[in-house]
Amino acid sequence: MRIDAHKVLMNSPNDVSALDRMIADGTVDPREIVAVIGKTEGNGGANDFTRGFATLSFALLIARHLGTSSDAVLKRVAFVWSGGTEGVLSPHATVFTRSEAAPAGAKRLALGIAVTRDLAAEEVGTMAEVHVVAEAVRHAQAEAGIVDAADVHYVQVKGPLLTPAMIAEARARGARLVTTDPNGSKPYARGATALGVALALGEVEEDALGDDVIARDMDLYTTVANTSAGGELKNCEILLFGNAPTAGGDLAIGHAVLADVVDAAAVARAAASAGGTTADIVSIFAKAEAPPGGVLRGRRTTMLSDADINYERHARASLGAVIASVTGDSAIFVSGGTEHQCAPGEAPIAAIVRVGTA
Amino acid sequence: MRIDAHKVLMNSPNDVSALDRMIADGTVDPREIVAVIGKTEGNGGANDFTRGFATLSFALLIARHLGTSSDAVLKRVAFVWSGGTEGVLSPHATVFTRSEAAPAGAKRLALGIAVTRDLAAEEVGTMAEVHVVAEAVRHAQAEAGIVDAADVHYVQVKGPLLTPAMIAEARARGARLVTTDPNGSKPYARGATALGVALALGEVEEDALGDDVIARDMDLYTTVANTSAGGELKNCEILLFGNAPTAGGDLAIGHAVLADVVDAAAVARAAASAGGTTADIVSIFAKAEAPPGGVLRGRRTTMLSDADINYERHARASLGAVIASVTGDSAIFVSGGTEHQCAPGEAPIAAIVRVGTA
Amino acid sequence: MRIDAHKVLMNSPNDVSALDRMIADGTVDPREIVAVIGKTEGNGGANDFTRGFATLSFALLIARHLGTSSDAVLKRVAFVWSGGTEGVLSPHATVFTRSEAAPAGAKRLALGIAVTRDLAAEEVGTMAEVHVVAEAVRHAQAEAGIVDAADVHYVQVKGPLLTPAMIAEARARGARLVTTDPNGSKPYARGATALGVALALGEVEEDALGDDVIARDMDLYTTVANTSAGGELKNCEILLFGNAPTAGGDLAIGHAVLADVVDAAAVARAAASAGGTTADIVSIFAKAEAPPGGVLRGRRTTMLSDADINYERHARASLGAVIASVTGDSAIFVSGGTEHQCAPGEAPIAAIVRVGTA
Amino acid sequence: MRIDAHKVLMNSPNDVSALDRMIADGTVDPREIVAVIGKTEGNGGANDFTRGFATLSFALLIARHLGTSSDAVLKRVAFVWSGGTEGVLSPHATVFTRSEAAPAGAKRLALGIAVTRDLAAEEVGTMAEVHVVAEAVRHAQAEAGIVDAADVHYVQVKGPLLTPAMIAEARARGARLVTTDPNGSKPYARGATALGVALALGEVEEDALGDDVIARDMDLYTTVANTSAGGELKNCEILLFGNAPTAGGDLAIGHAVLADVVDAAAVARAAASAGGTTADIVSIFAKAEAPPGGVLRGRRTTMLSDADINYERHARASLGAVIASVTGDSAIFVSGGTEHQCAPGEAPIAAIVRVGTA
Repeated sequence: MRIDAHKVLMNSPNDVSALDRMIADGTVDPREIVAVIGKTEGNGGANDFTRGFATLSFALLIARHLGTSSDAVLKRVAFVWSGGTEGVLSPHATVFTRSEAAPAGAKRLALGIAVTRDLAAEEVGTMAEVHVVAEAVRHAQAEAGIVDAADVHYVQVKGPLLTPAMIAEARARGARLVTTDPNGSKPYARGATALGVALALGEVEEDALGDDVIARDMDLYTTVANTSAGGELKNCEILLFGNAPTAGGDLAIGHAVLADVVDAAAVARAAASAGGTTADIVSIFAKAEAPPGGVLRGRRTTMLSDADINYERHARASLGAVIASVTGDSAIFVSGGTEHQCAPGEAPIAAIVRVGTA
Repeated sequence: MRIDAHKVLMNSPNDVSALDRMIADGTVDPREIVAVIGKTEGNGGANDFTRGFATLSFALLIARHLGTSSDAVLKRVAFVWSGGTEGVLSPHATVFTRSEAAPAGAKRLALGIAVTRDLAAEEVGTMAEVHVVAEAVRHAQAEAGIVDAADVHYVQVKGPLLTPAMIAEARARGARLVTTDPNGSKPYARGATALGVALALGEVEEDALGDDVIARDMDLYTTVANTSAGGELKNCEILLFGNAPTAGGDLAIGHAVLADVVDAAAVARAAASAGGTTADIVSIFAKAEAPPGGVLRGRRTTMLSDADINYERHARASLGAVIASVTGDSAIFVSGGTEHQCAPGEAPIAAIVRVGTA
Repeated sequence: MRIDAHKVLMNSPNDVSALDRMIADGTVDPREIVAVIGKTEGNGGANDFTRGFATLSFALLIARHLGTSSDAVLKRVAFVWSGGTEGVLSPHATVFTRSEAAPAGAKRLALGIAVTRDLAAEEVGTMAEVHVVAEAVRHAQAEAGIVDAADVHYVQVKGPLLTPAMIAEARARGARLVTTDPNGSKPYARGATALGVALALGEVEEDALGDDVIARDMDLYTTVANTSAGGELKNCEILLFGNAPTAGGDLAIGHAVLADVVDAAAVARAAASAGGTTADIVSIFAKAEAPPGGVLRGRRTTMLSDADINYERHARASLGAVIASVTGDSAIFVSGGTEHQCAPGEAPIAAIVRVGTA
Repeated sequence: MRIDAHKVLMNSPNDVSALDRMIADGTVDPREIVAVIGKTEGNGGANDFTRGFATLSFALLIARHLGTSSDAVLKRVAFVWSGGTEGVLSPHATVFTRSEAAPAGAKRLALGIAVTRDLAAEEVGTMAEVHVVAEAVRHAQAEAGIVDAADVHYVQVKGPLLTPAMIAEARARGARLVTTDPNGSKPYARGATALGVALALGEVEEDALGDDVIARDMDLYTTVANTSAGGELKNCEILLFGNAPTAGGDLAIGHAVLADVVDAAAVARAAASAGGTTADIVSIFAKAEAPPGGVLRGRRTTMLSDADINYERHARASLGAVIASVTGDSAIFVSGGTEHQCAPGEAPIAAIVRVGTA
């Protein structure tokens, strides 16, 4: 297996011209595309439709090249979009391809993809979700050929939140939910999937877990997950990246922990964790978080009290600029919401670097 | 003369408690306060009233300590506020005091303050404004005791824009204005005052100037001015900072040019220009600008096409985070609008550093 | 007693020139001012400082005319501001004066003002708050000389919410709070004070009440309260308006229930309730609410899913325009947040009308 | 000819399920669809991608039912979307079908569609654009079978604005443009197409026109046009609605002039102009405009000075609520920008009403 990462810039959420050109000139074989992870220029909130527009546009393009339907593409390619390109962040997608290749001799970038069964409304944000995610993470790790959990550096999870429709249906059945507030279900949903990653990778012990710790006991966490929750899903999708002895190619991945949104040094730590330097970075995937209580290194910030601009937008703008100040590249995947993803105020940052063929 | 800079944090635009404590414990003598430059947590736009609220609140506090009225304080203390604490920027003020002191032996921080006569509406944004500002800058430089223009590192200018009332009055007189759009007058107003600084300091030649270059020929600029235009003024106020041989104290000032909003290295250059390192920085004053065409180092940003959040807010969030990633201190003065203040896309950054007594 | 209502327009939160002129020309006697209720042009959120700026500005003006301090004015005059002049809403204040006068012969506008003791953090949003508010409402009704609770038409209540500081202090004492989320405490705080009004006026029975119904059982409500919660208060302030047989003057008050934010006919019903028509209206005080589930008369609105603009801003813009379409006057008091103030989706509207001397 | 108007509600910009059901149950014959005019829930600004998402989604649906491609649908169906469902406005589309029918005996709703040739950059916003639009309007009127210009009640025009790419290309050729500011070109573009309508319908005389009046002399205007300018077009598309003696069906159209955004009575005038009452209204198409100087009936509004929310959003929220207060239906087409569309501050409102078969 060989995983390649192709960064395509976008002039709008439906601008697929860069990928179209890469397919036309042979840089990308559309049959090998397995995942697309990107940033779109919406507001990142409940009324951000740029993500759906981008998914439809990329699926239509790939379908045209494969001679199939966009629905068929959606079944074979995993799409993950984060809305919100605040500050200098640049709309783009990283298109991942998987092809056959001989092992490189040293560990190289590997990718495993897994999906869970559909979850019932009463399972969202509970230990039931933790367990099905953990099981899927183990499958993805095995598929990627990664033996040692320490070689897993970035697990992107998309899962369901509680929509008004799901809440109404569950109430009609008399089912108990973690909350009856759709937006309020996000922390539980993101938290449960993050704990599922933590459990599968051995970052937390099973007996430390329970329904009552989810989105509450923030001392339990993973440092390699990047989870999101959306109303369009009923199950969870897992994209697990790490380094495998059986992988070929010239890429490797590493990660570090951002102490806060101005921790510029974490970029170099993430690159070093992958065996490279900041000059070797191909793609970065990070989470941005407001400092606890809004206070950054003793200074009050106003991101938590701003009624005009959501704090996630302030946090993404900040972290995006700091990372770009190190790498010079503002086409970075930075998203928000870090429940059980690093300690409070901290956040994960993963870097794919070009380490060369061994 | 000795100039000291006291940074006071603010929990709201009317929070003057930190300065009140400094006065109470003798750190600041209210009779020595000559200028207050700060950031407030408004939106930075036409309907940002946090600046006026802060001015009134500080004036009332100082008036109480001096046993005078707030109007009297407004006559003796210059107030400059920039609204907008996007990202990690922290609401704060730097309170400048001026006291008697023996020369330090080496050049130290000096401050000169000057005001121009009131400007007629038809002078705003024209060579007439350039000339009166240039003359005031020369007076401020002389007052500061700065002999060499190269020792001037930061000139803060506040001047008038064309308000609807001024436009109506001028029209009734048949006077010609640079524009009849109030918001559209800002670039002319900020540009003319910046060129006034450039002219006074020898950064541009007088015969290169004319009404038709203002806000148009962006190859003419100063690298040390930070200018703003507001509807509350009829004249221009100039605060000129530099290093003077006659000054005492332990502070010095320097400046550098930001290549763009992610130019982290400019912070160290500004500190070095003052004779110190980033660890010695006391206060930073910078301008944030969108990259030309919105394109940063080859990557499209969305700050110029965002209808929800003004580009100045994106730019301030970015630069503020980058500077804080270097200094660890997010109580930084970062404002927007750089006409004739550095080349397009570039922006000035000034740093006051503690260099010690010679 | 005679209550007069003077509407003053404002060009900014600190524009007190209209009231200054009314005092100068004798229209308003500053010694008779007892309350100021108005709208300011902020965002209405946690970082809206236009309310505080307006309070300070009006207090300074009145203090100057009375030859006293602004602190002394704050003790004798009740200030209520709602931020957010969305759509056509016009920044303004209604200044209420109270003077001696013979009874008019028929019931006329009366005003009673009362304050409660300070509340402990653990009392906010609980039955303890309900009871102290109910007691204060009864005092205010008595002070206003209103015998029949049916003659009470508008009760403005300001009370405390749980600030981060209060929460931290309560936790240190081991006290239990209704919530530890500052913004999340608003519904409880507004709801408890509304139920206090409902209890005092006999709109709900005491045995229907309990801690567990507050902000939960929305079938319990008052139709005459307009409550708000802010971090600057420790106690509750009550302004109770109604018609009293002992009152003089030419004003009367009435109220109606808005079925939704486009219920234009409610304006006439409120005027009729006061004994007048829409042409007689002097001032309107209303609450704007999003329709349940965001669905207005079978049509989906997007106000509840908008991540850029808070739903309260959409609701205020809508109701303000609808009322102005009836009265022609957009200087209306419209605020948001209706827990236990009318049935879900409904909201109170009060009108002061000039009915003439009897 | 018979024109029918089918209102379809939308739960998101890509929700085409309501039209899908109408096609499935035979209410709408997809072969007869000629135009779609609707509101989407974006911000209405340059970064509002909900319009493009809706167009693609509807085109894909219709293509599936017709067994053709979405590109083919875009050639046969005119799509007009306005972004921004502020206040109570409800996302929806009105789908227009054209079928064969005998004349009704009295004048009934007719629709003509025309497109102009592509415009060069130097023609945008000039008399050249006025003339090509005027010619297309005459063609559309003829196609609709409307003999008397007084029977034309609503002309929707979409045309190009000056994009950065067009400006750069024109500069390279040395061509002169009305402005080199993309956003600044909108008033010229909307104004020129509106004057084209006015010229074709005899609302202005040709000798009163010239390049220098466009977007400047606001005493020249049409009362039936609703024009918009977008970067995705090179030519102008005209949808002309009126009543024709040759038309069948049970619909008719009329229009009125809104004196301002709270002119509720204009709704009934528009319906009466079509021969019906407000109870007969099927669809409304209106423009919302800020009052001149922001002052509405003597009251200052804050919509023109709001740096957080664009004035068009305030105006749409206001007018939408006022219209819904009359009709009870908030699925209304309300858009912004009225250069040469009614006198300053005024705006057009058109109503399609069901008048029955004659």
